[in-house]
Amino acid sequence: MKITLQDFRAAHDVLAPIIEPTPLIKNEWLSSAYGCEVWLKLENMLPVGSFKMRGATNRIHHLTEKERKHGVLAVSAGNHAQGVAWAARRFGVKATIVMPEGSPLTKIRNTEALGAHVILKGASIEESFAHAEALMKKHPYVFVHPFKDPLVIAGQGSIGFELIEQLPDMDYVFSAIGGGGLVAGIGGVLKALRPGVKLFAGQASGASAMVQSLKKKRVVETGAADTFADGIRVKKANPEMLKLLKDVVFESHPVPDEQIARAILELMEKARIIAEGAGAVPLALLHALHAKDPKRFKGKKVVLVICGGNIDVNLLERIIDRGLTESHRKVRLSVPIADRPGTLHQLTGIIKEGGANILHVVHDRDSQGAGITGANVVFTLETKGELELAALEKRLKKDFPLCQLVR
Amino acid sequence: MKITLQDFRAAHDVLAPIIEPTPLIKNEWLSSAYGCEVWLKLENMLPVGSFKMRGATNRIHHLTEKERKHGVLAVSAGNHAQGVAWAARRFGVKATIVMPEGSPLTKIRNTEALGAHVILKGASIEESFAHAEALMKKHPYVFVHPFKDPLVIAGQGSIGFELIEQLPDMDYVFSAIGGGGLVAGIGGVLKALRPGVKLFAGQASGASAMVQSLKKKRVVETGAADTFADGIRVKKANPEMLKLLKDVVFESHPVPDEQIARAILELMEKARIIAEGAGAVPLALLHALHAKDPKRFKGKKVVLVICGGNIDVNLLERIIDRGLTESHRKVRLSVPIADRPGTLHQLTGIIKEGGANILHVVHDRDSQGAGITGANVVFTLETKGELELAALEKRLKKDFPLCQLVR
Repeated sequence: MKITLQDFRAAHDVLAPIIEPTPLIKNEWLSSAYGCEVWLKLENMLPVGSFKMRGATNRIHHLTEKERKHGVLAVSAGNHAQGVAWAARRFGVKATIVMPEGSPLTKIRNTEALGAHVILKGASIEESFAHAEALMKKHPYVFVHPFKDPLVIAGQGSIGFELIEQLPDMDYVFSAIGGGGLVAGIGGVLKALRPGVKLFAGQASGASAMVQSLKKKRVVETGAADTFADGIRVKKANPEMLKLLKDVVFESHPVPDEQIARAILELMEKARIIAEGAGAVPLALLHALHAKDPKRFKGKKVVLVICGGNIDVNLLERIIDRGLTESHRKVRLSVPIADRPGTLHQLTGIIKEGGANILHVVHDRDSQGAGITGANVVFTLETKGELELAALEKRLKKDFPLCQLVR
Repeated sequence: MKITLQDFRAAHDVLAPIIEPTPLIKNEWLSSAYGCEVWLKLENMLPVGSFKMRGATNRIHHLTEKERKHGVLAVSAGNHAQGVAWAARRFGVKATIVMPEGSPLTKIRNTEALGAHVILKGASIEESFAHAEALMKKHPYVFVHPFKDPLVIAGQGSIGFELIEQLPDMDYVFSAIGGGGLVAGIGGVLKALRPGVKLFAGQASGASAMVQSLKKKRVVETGAADTFADGIRVKKANPEMLKLLKDVVFESHPVPDEQIARAILELMEKARIIAEGAGAVPLALLHALHAKDPKRFKGKKVVLVICGGNIDVNLLERIIDRGLTESHRKVRLSVPIADRPGTLHQLTGIIKEGGANILHVVHDRDSQGAGITGANVVFTLETKGELELAALEKRLKKDFPLCQLVR
């Protein structure tokens, strides 16, 4: 597979009148935190909330008249489904999407709302692929691959052209790798037109086949793929993609899920945007590399490609919850008390004085920690931060020496 | 107070080289939901996360050399504090900000991080103002008012110029009203240059002094101001602001907090952005007016000014939680069971088959509903949506006829 600069340019020309350039915004908080100019490329602002519609649009644009009549087929649990559905509707082409049976309802409904016919089949994405192959034998659909297709990769490359236009003197670009289409696209354009720009790629530690392959210079299959970042949950590096990527990726690293979650929260609080797991990988990677060597990116212009923002709000709720706990704004407090009238009142009085807000209380006389005549009370509290919490803990210990924070 | 088109133009010229225009993005999901072209003006993408830095920058730009040396003083619990701090740092001017004692720690820290000196004084914003007045008697600070200042209003007007540039043929602009500076600024520019554009203003029902004043054409004081949208929590309409606003506001309406919360969630899910309460008011208002008359805005170009995105994540967590509950993705299920071995296992088996995820369980033998030999179990469940929940409920009723959803 080879994609020339001419291919990339042609794709950019196809997309320019159809898809508005996404914003590139300098973020002052992140710039100051990481000692460099941090620019966010907001692919999550696209109509379907991810870059996937770029490649799909270029692919479907190139269908022959006859192929358009047959319609397209794709397999996806999420963003690619919506990208293909959007592009197909744009060109008046019928789209059939096979999605795994357990797919989130919102993603199924969003894909259907874009006019696609959704078939729920297969317990995993691999089984869905198998079903799609069976369908292809019966119907003359054109299969739109999520990444291993020169036209799809050329479409993702339009991000590279937009970046060159928006920030000609960028130094670094950070992106997430899943199948590799996004990085191959951006990297192909930058290598041809801005060879000095260094491309960093991050992958979730639990699904890091491509990062391992790039390190070992041969295809690695991880067997398992375990990450909440569903957009990049890939078990095996594709050999053709590896070939493209090794020429354009400057460095690649795995990033643990906890760091991706932390980055999602940081983007919510400091950039006021919603990024999905894959979309937050670049910030998680910058965070990790900056922690290792704080001066490495000093004064440089660093672009983080926020590739998508399709994340279920219940997952977001958990990420916020964990973030609040980690930053001591939400804590559990366990207090063994004497089981006599007024003790709980005394305890809640101290909590009130400490300015904390009670979210949840469990008062348990059966608890082991309680003693024969006592009870154990576990509070979930909202506090203003570390300092307030430390003051409250100190005050509590005076009256209730056995109280402790449950981490 | 009078602000001429020349004043607005001058302010726009001051700000253009300092503040990048914020993105204006068409949102396809919202457009299709509300039967019109919905465009989002993303003021929450500004460095301090709200439009307030526009007015503050214009005000501080106009300080005399002597005034710059004295520094500026402002009173604010949030966005204005950060706007003034940002602008003061930009011009190398010392900023002192009085904030009420209970202000959220993140806002205090953000303001300090911008180089301002923060004084925590007063139990309410009114008491903070009183303290600022006392300070002004002792020091030659220049006071930067959050809205009642022609230079501040002229600065906010730069949003109007940007909109005219970005979407010359817009039909409607929706904005939140607090003190009135934002609406007076945008409205002043539009009235002069695009008199056909209709400006809609929304205010939280619990703090709707200005909306009531605009209706009654006289200053109304509500006495109380109760809304979680802290950016627009104002008790009294200012007479000079009312005079400016009545000439530029086409319609104004109160919007209840629950609707503002719903709009915040809709912006997270459909536009992948974080809006604070005031920032979501325009969408809440569009939602309400569309519900009343679905054809009213048909085919029109509607701009929603997302004026800010500074919201505490713990508040966001509650909003998500309520949204999940309202859309049946999170439910409480109360089941009286016989207190014998295996019953809980039978129950959890049915829940598992129904594809629901258990978040929390309370098993209570003391419950009134439990009967003398039974227990009551309350599950908090995560479900995929209404359909799945209905199927699960039906299945449960077969084995546990007394089970019920707790709303």
